[in-house]
Amino acid sequence: MGSVEKYFELVEQSQQQFIEQLREVVAIPSVSGDVSRRGDVIRMGEWLQSKWEALGATCKRVEPGKQNLDGVVLDLPPVILGQYGNDPSKKTVLVYGHYDVQPALIEDGWDTDPFTLVETEDGRLVGRGSTDDKGPVLGWLLCAETHKQAGIEFPVNLKFCFEGMEESGSEGLDDIIVAEADEWFKGTDVVCISDNYWLGKTKPCLTHGLRGVSYFHLIVEGPGADLHSGVFGGTVHEPMVDLVHLLAKLVDNKGRIQVPGIYDQVAAVTDAEEQSYESVEFTHEALVADLKNDVLIHGAERDTLKHRWRFPTLSIHGVEGAFHASGDKTVIPARVRGKFSLRTVPNMEPARVAELVTKYLNDEFAKLGSKNSMRVVETHGGRWWFSSPDHPNFVAGARATERVYGVKPDLTREGGSIPVTLTFEENLKTNVLLLPMGASDDGAHSINEKIDKRNFIQGIKLFGAYLHEIAATDLAAE
Amino acid sequence: MGSVEKYFELVEQSQQQFIEQLREVVAIPSVSGDVSRRGDVIRMGEWLQSKWEALGATCKRVEPGKQNLDGVVLDLPPVILGQYGNDPSKKTVLVYGHYDVQPALIEDGWDTDPFTLVETEDGRLVGRGSTDDKGPVLGWLLCAETHKQAGIEFPVNLKFCFEGMEESGSEGLDDIIVAEADEWFKGTDVVCISDNYWLGKTKPCLTHGLRGVSYFHLIVEGPGADLHSGVFGGTVHEPMVDLVHLLAKLVDNKGRIQVPGIYDQVAAVTDAEEQSYESVEFTHEALVADLKNDVLIHGAERDTLKHRWRFPTLSIHGVEGAFHASGDKTVIPARVRGKFSLRTVPNMEPARVAELVTKYLNDEFAKLGSKNSMRVVETHGGRWWFSSPDHPNFVAGARATERVYGVKPDLTREGGSIPVTLTFEENLKTNVLLLPMGASDDGAHSINEKIDKRNFIQGIKLFGAYLHEIAATDLAAE
Repeated sequence: MGSVEKYFELVEQSQQQFIEQLREVVAIPSVSGDVSRRGDVIRMGEWLQSKWEALGATCKRVEPGKQNLDGVVLDLPPVILGQYGNDPSKKTVLVYGHYDVQPALIEDGWDTDPFTLVETEDGRLVGRGSTDDKGPVLGWLLCAETHKQAGIEFPVNLKFCFEGMEESGSEGLDDIIVAEADEWFKGTDVVCISDNYWLGKTKPCLTHGLRGVSYFHLIVEGPGADLHSGVFGGTVHEPMVDLVHLLAKLVDNKGRIQVPGIYDQVAAVTDAEEQSYESVEFTHEALVADLKNDVLIHGAERDTLKHRWRFPTLSIHGVEGAFHASGDKTVIPARVRGKFSLRTVPNMEPARVAELVTKYLNDEFAKLGSKNSMRVVETHGGRWWFSSPDHPNFVAGARATERVYGVKPDLTREGGSIPVTLTFEENLKTNVLLLPMGASDDGAHSINEKIDKRNFIQGIKLFGAYLHEIAATDLAAE
Repeated sequence: MGSVEKYFELVEQSQQQFIEQLREVVAIPSVSGDVSRRGDVIRMGEWLQSKWEALGATCKRVEPGKQNLDGVVLDLPPVILGQYGNDPSKKTVLVYGHYDVQPALIEDGWDTDPFTLVETEDGRLVGRGSTDDKGPVLGWLLCAETHKQAGIEFPVNLKFCFEGMEESGSEGLDDIIVAEADEWFKGTDVVCISDNYWLGKTKPCLTHGLRGVSYFHLIVEGPGADLHSGVFGGTVHEPMVDLVHLLAKLVDNKGRIQVPGIYDQVAAVTDAEEQSYESVEFTHEALVADLKNDVLIHGAERDTLKHRWRFPTLSIHGVEGAFHASGDKTVIPARVRGKFSLRTVPNMEPARVAELVTKYLNDEFAKLGSKNSMRVVETHGGRWWFSSPDHPNFVAGARATERVYGVKPDLTREGGSIPVTLTFEENLKTNVLLLPMGASDDGAHSINEKIDKRNFIQGIKLFGAYLHEIAATDLAAE
């Protein structure tokens, strides 16, 4: 029996212990957005550090500094950096994950206590953090423990970076990655992140692209204070009227962005890409079931995927400063701030996007001939990420997946952003693989978050298989 | 010396006592919208009743019932009905006012404690309720007291109706007016309400028109829950995108309503009306100073007045259900509710307005070809009010004004609504005169509410002069 098969066998035998370990970490309510839980977040980081150190890893606890949360000054939870193995003849894989979780209260509608792991008869492991991201973070630890227990030589040097602020903006993380790029992270050959999800519920995937996001505020102001519509309606330029006219110019209701030039930088769909949609596990039927209503713009699955993955889109999120409560109020708001964002794709540049959007809105506002004032503020401009699935890191991930699941993984992109991906790629100058453990219906930020027992156990196998594949791969072939 | 001159003289001599009386009523914080102040509201109503009874009036305390305010069940404040004098040879005048006030906290930005009347060197009497509406309500009492004190026969039978819920929707009042129309209010010849303001700061006015208001919710819904714009942007019909497209169709940014047919019922401007704007005290300069910015749509004063008084207007108030807080959130709201209202004028019918608005929005929504659902709900449809200023009630008011102020009053209309005006007119079948005491800059619902000492004292003279004019008027000449 090869070492990987031996590893798989021991994972199979250890299922119940693994679930107990998951129960232990789910029970630590490490909610980074809750002042009263900060001690639990730090405790969770310390738990990870002590477990890895017990295995023989060298760890470094980095303190990102202080944070003001709801008026309270708190210590930010530590970033736990680690090094497990230091054999110059082996390759070095860096894994990233986060040990904090989203808030969860039974009153939100959970069927069971969010911080008590429940194993259901249909094979779900329900609890806050089970899939996002404690299952995967624990997975790496269990992978190493199982190798040690089975007496299998660990195939790579493993570095890790576990943070406790991912659900709250990863405060302080980027600075640490930049500072440690040529220090703690020196020698990293490839990066692997397990913090996203399969496209569907049954077929595994590798993820090689993320969209960027450019967020804008469109501010229109006029009168010195809110006005009574009985007295001033029809006699002053209403900021809210100007605003809805401008917002309506941004995108048509088929999702087509109206900003001139916005599609000029978008990479063309190649024949190979067009082909690749054929085999992807994705149906409108399942999507409509999730949405509860068929409000899909596109008729074909591949068009929906393209508009999620590889075309820019524009969404209107809301208005700040206008009347937003229930009931009726006859106010003319004096100053309103429309919020919208674009999801950006290769090869769009955020600076160019901001320039085009601002110019277009200025032009359209000038056409209105309003006496109000208008300005556009780009509050965030994060780049897209795209990696070739032909890179040896991805090839290793694909081989490992096929070995565990018996099927070639889908090659997916995501519509949202995972900013740390780009930070690692740019600062460590290495390839990054997104290797999800959970499925699309895990409900990461929702009530009754779960990971399927199958995904958790097979995922631990997958992590091990991936590391063995990396060990056997010629990365220079890239 | 005639009896009116004698009354004027005693008013002049009593100025300081009158201000002390105003101080006493301002000190009762009768905030109808505040659960903790309900006892004060009731106390204020009882104060009025006892004062009028001490003068010899017959009062009836009507309890409108219960109210649920912020989860607390409260007694509604009483409506105080009164009858002062019952001489069949005299005419009967009904006056209405309200003894509750808007909320006021020193933290809102008041220069002084809102419930402690402060007399400033430049002649302002500052305090919550000073102008809205305790000054006028007290004015009627002081008018009657002064007549008694001076030994002048009171010229009319006075009925009064003072409520304590005007600032909170006049809950229960309409039912009482309907029920008492042929009972307590029987025999009313004319009605006079002093609860609005001069158009400017120096010239008195009579008000003979109010706009109606039709309030609408435009509801667009699609997905079963809020969505992540990274995942779903560009692939689903966003309710917020449909909404801004529809809202932008309602009105252009010059205030022109785009609903077909909406102007068809609007009465034409007559030559006489056109002429009447000549003498009105109203300048854009003063208006722009109040607004802090020149955001006026119209170039000529008379056009601004026409769009405030006699043309319909449409204002967009806000959106419920979308992201409205500060900061950035990449949500696609699943269900949004746009709020807008039309101010209506003679001869528009609310039912017809609702029909036109609904049809238009349905047509425009159909053009969008969206898979979301849309519906329009008219949440309120209140009629405009218009009275001829040639009615003897207005002629009496004009004569009284000229006698007190030495100038013919402006004949004004208001852009807003005072619904009780129409309720009295329709149920009592009598003419209603709006006879304001305060000036345009009194800041009725704002911080540092005031009434000028001049307006308060001359206003008390005006009330007396008006009642004497009514006594001398042939109402049948109408």
